[in-house]
Amino acid sequence: MASKPHTGRAIVSSDMLSKGGWKMQDLTLRPIADNELIVDMVATGICHTDVIFGDQEDGQPGSFYPRVMGHEGACPVSSYTWRSGYVREVGSKVTVAKPGDPVLLSFAYCNGCHSCKDGHPAFCDKFNEINFYGGKDYTLSSSGGDPSKPDISGGFFGHSSFASVSIVNEVSVVNVKDSITKKEDLQLLAPFGCGIQTGSGTVANIAKASQQDIVAVTGLGGVGLSAIMAAKISGCRMIIGIDRIASRLELAKTLGATHTINTAELPEGKSVVDAVKEVAEGSGPSVSIDTTGLPALIRAAVEWTRNRGKICQVGTSPMDAKLDIPIFMFMISGKQFIGTVEGDSVPSEYVPKMIQWWRDGQFPVEKLVKYYKADDFETALHDMHSGEIVKPILLWS
Amino acid sequence: MASKPHTGRAIVSSDMLSKGGWKMQDLTLRPIADNELIVDMVATGICHTDVIFGDQEDGQPGSFYPRVMGHEGACPVSSYTWRSGYVREVGSKVTVAKPGDPVLLSFAYCNGCHSCKDGHPAFCDKFNEINFYGGKDYTLSSSGGDPSKPDISGGFFGHSSFASVSIVNEVSVVNVKDSITKKEDLQLLAPFGCGIQTGSGTVANIAKASQQDIVAVTGLGGVGLSAIMAAKISGCRMIIGIDRIASRLELAKTLGATHTINTAELPEGKSVVDAVKEVAEGSGPSVSIDTTGLPALIRAAVEWTRNRGKICQVGTSPMDAKLDIPIFMFMISGKQFIGTVEGDSVPSEYVPKMIQWWRDGQFPVEKLVKYYKADDFETALHDMHSGEIVKPILLWS
Repeated sequence: MASKPHTGRAIVSSDMLSKGGWKMQDLTLRPIADNELIVDMVATGICHTDVIFGDQEDGQPGSFYPRVMGHEGACPVSSYTWRSGYVREVGSKVTVAKPGDPVLLSFAYCNGCHSCKDGHPAFCDKFNEINFYGGKDYTLSSSGGDPSKPDISGGFFGHSSFASVSIVNEVSVVNVKDSITKKEDLQLLAPFGCGIQTGSGTVANIAKASQQDIVAVTGLGGVGLSAIMAAKISGCRMIIGIDRIASRLELAKTLGATHTINTAELPEGKSVVDAVKEVAEGSGPSVSIDTTGLPALIRAAVEWTRNRGKICQVGTSPMDAKLDIPIFMFMISGKQFIGTVEGDSVPSEYVPKMIQWWRDGQFPVEKLVKYYKADDFETALHDMHSGEIVKPILLWS
Repeated sequence: MASKPHTGRAIVSSDMLSKGGWKMQDLTLRPIADNELIVDMVATGICHTDVIFGDQEDGQPGSFYPRVMGHEGACPVSSYTWRSGYVREVGSKVTVAKPGDPVLLSFAYCNGCHSCKDGHPAFCDKFNEINFYGGKDYTLSSSGGDPSKPDISGGFFGHSSFASVSIVNEVSVVNVKDSITKKEDLQLLAPFGCGIQTGSGTVANIAKASQQDIVAVTGLGGVGLSAIMAAKISGCRMIIGIDRIASRLELAKTLGATHTINTAELPEGKSVVDAVKEVAEGSGPSVSIDTTGLPALIRAAVEWTRNRGKICQVGTSPMDAKLDIPIFMFMISGKQFIGTVEGDSVPSEYVPKMIQWWRDGQFPVEKLVKYYKADDFETALHDMHSGEIVKPILLWS
């Protein structure tokens, strides 16, 4: 607990985003514990999860104020919570990195439950508690406040990353000193690890898609588009991109989609279920990946997926949303509805693999991103909401 | 289409069971087609599916009268639709058996869809249509009626088996002349192939349970008890049987259950979810198999299953029953909800395997059955409903 106070600035959510509650502020960090690090941020992606949890009324599940959001993820939760930066200081028991090392920051997990012990930290029993609800880790004080009495929560996803400097639990750290040397690569990598890992990991680790598969991806944000890229690498015989934004459908084609369906332009009387089945040999896709979290589309995916097919749920739905599955028809279909987080990847193993794919030109993430100064976060949010930009990245330096 | 009329008797469902609509009657069979066989029945198991479809109002999905029910299956649908008998006559294009061969009869399938072609006929695209809804294959005439103008449906599960003699499509036939020589073995085998195959196949083929797994089975009928036996063969480290009938829980222990939970005797204030999790290390079972079809219990199984665990839906629910899955919580849990039919087994391959297990003493199906003369079917139904008997078998000769 012996480190001098660090200061920085962060986007503090003092209230709901839609009420203008997000503001850039100067802050002081509390002293770090033995297992924590101080990291200077280089880049942070903006993700819809930040908006979901930072735009609910105070007291709703996972929402409270004041806090600092930020975790990166083209698609919420379902993506590792990346940001990138350089280590400034480490706690006495930290071994994962030394000051000066370039790092990527992922989600937090308990390291004690059966999932963590089995090597599947993305399905940590305490994921929700640690990353959302229980994230009331007061690490920050308003400028001028007593750093030993922090009053702003910095624990979102283990390391609220809408900040120029942040306290991070060592479990969230992936050291990339052996694979990344340039700062501009670290900037690009901030979202690289999120959507790419979640989308590609869902295809490779969860669905285990192969050349026999027809893969349909609903929602072509960062996660969806990376699923498209992974399906191409896996040699899937048909890859169907589904969205309502024409430019994203075009982008999907350049990344590997063999077919696209624009849900905003379906012919009169044709349902999206009919449209997908028609493209997919009448029987439907063998693998469906939902990155939208929209219950109506998830329901449609359950319906359009062929018998014995897999429906992978990747997108974050509203907390109270439910999926009505007709039990009998689902039973005789032999389908599988699968909850997926982070592509079931282990960051320390998966990151080097992704970096290699990226260097080989198989994950052209540069096609998805646009950089913004951190101060311009409101413009970045606007561009993300309008659909103009797939993945806004905030630069802190 | 050239065979002389055959006669026999069958339990005809002229109306709902609860209205006294099931009666034994003499019948005449229509001539067989090139791909059909006439089979003299030895034994038929009674299954809840027969009651479900034979006790709904006329016109409800899958229900119409008059017809002959019967398909065998400790648990509906989810079990192969077995009965056993000897072939009397074969159509001109039938190659699967010759007159005199002992056979087991399974469900029907289209043999043309992707599931059938991929070797998974249990998930035939037309399963429902062929076995339930579309089963309006009028093969039978009332005694004295014109056999060329049949007026009673005999197409339930491809071969309505509540009859002393029946027309069977060759896809439903498994020839056991190489493995079964005694008639009493054929009697015992009628249910053997149903519950055993569905329950054991779900454990082995769908869940792929291993020594690392904790398996919980809800509903200890023929299917559930065979899942228990299969879990024991797979060496699962914990096997939990769940039911509300004490005698079945005791039986489960003799078949391999390491723990049992009587849902009728839970302590005040303790839910079944709490009870199962408590037994299963706090985190819950890694594999849950529902053979009850009761939505409340399925919902509970989804909840008590540990993160990344599998919930295998085996039991038949009411046609309009739905499962409400909380999307977000399910997503981050990494659980899998899996529809299963027939244990995803291929009868011609799986039957010899089961016969061997039985001969090795690993499937003591004799512990589950009780024989009844076919004329005493009402007593058999009563004993099944009361829970006294796991698997009633009707003997036709």
